Amino acid sequence: MLVALKRILIGRPLKSNELGEQKLNKTKALAILSSDALSSVAYGPEQILLVLITISIAAFWYSIPIGIGVLILLVALILSYRQIIFAYPHGGGAYVVSKENLGKYPGLVAGGSLLVDYILTVAVSVSAGTDAITSAFPTLHEHTVGIAVVFVILITLLNLRGVTESASILAYPVYLFVLALFILIGAGLYNIASGGVSAAQHAPIGTPVMGISLFLLLRAFASGSSALTGVEAISNAIPNFRDPAPKNAARTLTVMGILLALLFSGTVFLAYYYGITPIVEATVVSQIAEQTFGRTFMYFFIQGTTALILILAANTGYSAFPLLAVNLAKDKFIPRMFAVRGDRLGYSNGIIMLGVLSILLILAFKGQTEQLIPLYAVGVFIPFTLSQSGMMLKWIRQKPPGWVPKLIINTTGAFICLTVTFVFFLTKFTQIWPILIFLPLIVLAFHRINKHYEAVGEQLRLTTCEPAVPIEGNVIILPVAGITHVVEHSANYAKSLGADQIIAVYIPFEREDEAKFEEKWSKWMPDVRLVTLHSPYRSIIQPLMKFIDTVERKARESNYQVTVIIPQFIPKKGWHNILHNQTSFTIRAALLYRKDVIVTTVPYHLKK
Amino acid sequence: MLVALKRILIGRPLKSNELGEQKLNKTKALAILSSDALSSVAYGPEQILLVLITISIAAFWYSIPIGIGVLILLVALILSYRQIIFAYPHGGGAYVVSKENLGKYPGLVAGGSLLVDYILTVAVSVSAGTDAITSAFPTLHEHTVGIAVVFVILITLLNLRGVTESASILAYPVYLFVLALFILIGAGLYNIASGGVSAAQHAPIGTPVMGISLFLLLRAFASGSSALTGVEAISNAIPNFRDPAPKNAARTLTVMGILLALLFSGTVFLAYYYGITPIVEATVVSQIAEQTFGRTFMYFFIQGTTALILILAANTGYSAFPLLAVNLAKDKFIPRMFAVRGDRLGYSNGIIMLGVLSILLILAFKGQTEQLIPLYAVGVFIPFTLSQSGMMLKWIRQKPPGWVPKLIINTTGAFICLTVTFVFFLTKFTQIWPILIFLPLIVLAFHRINKHYEAVGEQLRLTTCEPAVPIEGNVIILPVAGITHVVEHSANYAKSLGADQIIAVYIPFEREDEAKFEEKWSKWMPDVRLVTLHSPYRSIIQPLMKFIDTVERKARESNYQVTVIIPQFIPKKGWHNILHNQTSFTIRAALLYRKDVIVTTVPYHLKK
Repeated sequence: MLVALKRILIGRPLKSNELGEQKLNKTKALAILSSDALSSVAYGPEQILLVLITISIAAFWYSIPIGIGVLILLVALILSYRQIIFAYPHGGGAYVVSKENLGKYPGLVAGGSLLVDYILTVAVSVSAGTDAITSAFPTLHEHTVGIAVVFVILITLLNLRGVTESASILAYPVYLFVLALFILIGAGLYNIASGGVSAAQHAPIGTPVMGISLFLLLRAFASGSSALTGVEAISNAIPNFRDPAPKNAARTLTVMGILLALLFSGTVFLAYYYGITPIVEATVVSQIAEQTFGRTFMYFFIQGTTALILILAANTGYSAFPLLAVNLAKDKFIPRMFAVRGDRLGYSNGIIMLGVLSILLILAFKGQTEQLIPLYAVGVFIPFTLSQSGMMLKWIRQKPPGWVPKLIINTTGAFICLTVTFVFFLTKFTQIWPILIFLPLIVLAFHRINKHYEAVGEQLRLTTCEPAVPIEGNVIILPVAGITHVVEHSANYAKSLGADQIIAVYIPFEREDEAKFEEKWSKWMPDVRLVTLHSPYRSIIQPLMKFIDTVERKARESNYQVTVIIPQFIPKKGWHNILHNQTSFTIRAALLYRKDVIVTTVPYHLKK
Repeated sequence: MLVALKRILIGRPLKSNELGEQKLNKTKALAILSSDALSSVAYGPEQILLVLITISIAAFWYSIPIGIGVLILLVALILSYRQIIFAYPHGGGAYVVSKENLGKYPGLVAGGSLLVDYILTVAVSVSAGTDAITSAFPTLHEHTVGIAVVFVILITLLNLRGVTESASILAYPVYLFVLALFILIGAGLYNIASGGVSAAQHAPIGTPVMGISLFLLLRAFASGSSALTGVEAISNAIPNFRDPAPKNAARTLTVMGILLALLFSGTVFLAYYYGITPIVEATVVSQIAEQTFGRTFMYFFIQGTTALILILAANTGYSAFPLLAVNLAKDKFIPRMFAVRGDRLGYSNGIIMLGVLSILLILAFKGQTEQLIPLYAVGVFIPFTLSQSGMMLKWIRQKPPGWVPKLIINTTGAFICLTVTFVFFLTKFTQIWPILIFLPLIVLAFHRINKHYEAVGEQLRLTTCEPAVPIEGNVIILPVAGITHVVEHSANYAKSLGADQIIAVYIPFEREDEAKFEEKWSKWMPDVRLVTLHSPYRSIIQPLMKFIDTVERKARESNYQVTVIIPQFIPKKGWHNILHNQTSFTIRAALLYRKDVIVTTVPYHLKK
């Protein structure tokens, strides 16, 4: 039944050789990998204005130079990530670049930071999209958390079905959003050109403003840079592209960069020219749309596609997280289950883990995840800085033909990203200090997991470990609880193995029981030696373990192997298990974990 | 560490032959088995007045004839339970009596009803005692639930230490309470005799009262009868008495009956004579004490011991529940773990279960368990009625010498108890209807558990089941995941067993991997046959199960036994387990539950 449900939810299993059909063309890849970056347009410009308004409305003209600064950063990032894509065509992005060029720990910082960031992406963007919906339909407001969780589950299921299917479904809303914003910007510019908007609404560029400071401008710039989160996703997900994957990925990245630049600058410009002030009741984009179209169909179309893209921004996390996890798992820094492909050829463990963790975040913050946005922005700029610096070092070390312009691009990128990171720490320390605690913890966890895997590999390799001790003979111990059919079956099995010695062990709690059982046994199965261990404290494990110790010590002297045969009831119905004392489980666990003996379980299937 | 903690909390384990020292003398037995019944004096008289006040204060004189009715019922119960004790000296009370004389289902109704009742006893009495404490110290009020839970845990631990130890500690408060109430009644009677209390305070007996009805009087009588809950406890706990157990138990019961009768009639009389009206702020006993002594030391002494005995009334449940459970477990109506003696020779599973369930009740009702009192009273009168009727039938059937007076006693008891039960259903149906749902469910559960145990017994008994199939030879299947030390060890073991056939099974996900592994294997271990099962859907379980099916079908034809040898990593630290894919657990579970093959686990203890 569970299997059938799984089939309905995620579809039939796919064969490993169907992997090729699961690759993405550029149109679909752009849709699912850029939704995070493009959705930032919905809140990035607003973030700049929210900082400037703390001075006065007259300071709003600064949004134009700040917007230009963000665009420069965007260009630097796109150019340098193009270089990363060609240099590391197997994906892994910032993690691989930092690890290869800067060393293990910078790599782990970049990787850990991005892993956490994708979880934050999912939680933050789904919560934001849900907020947009519940603002439109206030009756749903009390169910915000529930709705957000349902969205995460839906996106998780969609991704478990495989990347092609999710891309086919999710492409429409993304392109509709792009279309909607282009229409808005076009109509807005037309209004301005045709004189429909008076220039009086905004302070002219260059107006002197009281109280403005470099600190404040930097802070506004850092806030605006949060629109660039998600730019790195494509570099993590190169293996999802059709061949030639790096070339396709690089082109997709360029297109995404151009779209993002146009939408971002258009929105910033219109907001400035219309003289829009951020208010609680309506977002900046919604105000622009209302001033341009009034409350017409277009207004609601823009609002609807914005809500959708906010939710779908989560999907970028679902594309990038599992592939980053595969890279970390292959390098043995996280459990190896993250490198296993699921039924639909996606890395389902990563997808499920991402879904579960972001649901937990949503529940923990009761759907109010806005306070996580700065944390999430700084979590992107740390790996940005590390990967750019890594690329710098790479060019300086390798000096390939034409390396100087490449070095300049990456150096510029590294410098701007480092600055943004510093600005974040300077201006928003109260919101981002937790990263200073959990990043080291994550890196420590990576390190310890890696140490364990290395140690295991060392112990298993035939070349490095001691040769196996030969087994000269076998001693079988058979704990018995009575004279029943189950015991008969196990004893027959023990005899069939041709062991050198079979010892049945009976553990009576009362002295009287001891003699009685010995007599019965000698009549029933005289060919198997019986040992009784009187247990005055009514424990079965203790005397049995002590006895096995003694037998094992003697056996080891002559390289004999000790095997304990334990019969186990398998009841027909699950609930029947609580009616049996599960002694066989307890004995088995105690033996396997504490002793070096082999445990054989003889199932006895109850028919009723 | 856990073992050390257990030692501190409940003491060193006791040997089975120390059981004799764990038996109770009459003084201690009276203390722990009568606390429930005696504590009823603290609320029984009040319950009568609470019903009468719905008419008028003039009706209070009816408390005297109603009190006499309760006393008659008490005498009938004591006399007939004495007869039960001698007739069924191994304990079990109402359950055993009803089962033996009325049949299985009446027995189960009595037993189930009492099991639930003891859980209610613990929850209700601990909550009541906690209420008394938090009324005295209002700052503790918000912690009521927490305090009640801590009391349950303390009483549970005390009982896990063993019945002697708990009795030694709990005897003092019980006797102090009895002493306190005797002083109160004595002083009250002296006051009345010396004319310190004017007779004007109460309406004389026989005053006609408007609006009084038989229904109301019956209801008052039923409420007063709740003071008799706990009378049956001694008959369940006979095995806890020193030899001669039945005689000692009967004497204890008589003494308890006399004490209860004196305290109950004294309280009812004083309440009537003082003209006390039940109010929310102070209990009836507290009002009597205040009128008698004023707010002196004696007043607080009475209040303190009353709070204590309310909490300790729970202990009666702890003495009776586990022993009733043993009887039910021995008859195979509840899981057999309830018949196993713990480290301290008490039936610890029953004790722990009682503690856990009553804590759950307290949490579910947030410490406000008063509404459970009627449920709890009716839950006692059902088994009372059943056991009395059972005894009636017994005398009629067996007709031992002097059976007529015995029959009269039990018939009177049965008749009164049946009446009380009816009155409960008539007058408090809204509070007690749940019993009509959960009693049938409990009896159904008993029935299904019993059916399962009977079926298992049938299948295990050598005389009834088919003779075991002889094992003519062995086939060993060895799933391998690579060429490692672990595989080498398992293969060596398989060879040492002298099986007729050993088949190594490798499950590659990719075609290329298949040929490569086959080549490596044939070089490494040419004497063991390798089968590769290409798994295009990347499942290990499915192809393996299919293969084992095929092998097993062939093996069965010639009575060969199939054994699957599974290597299992045992990491040094618990958390390491999440770093390994637990394939061995999955395979083992799938095999044991779905197939008739034997599974051998070869542990490989990781050293780092």
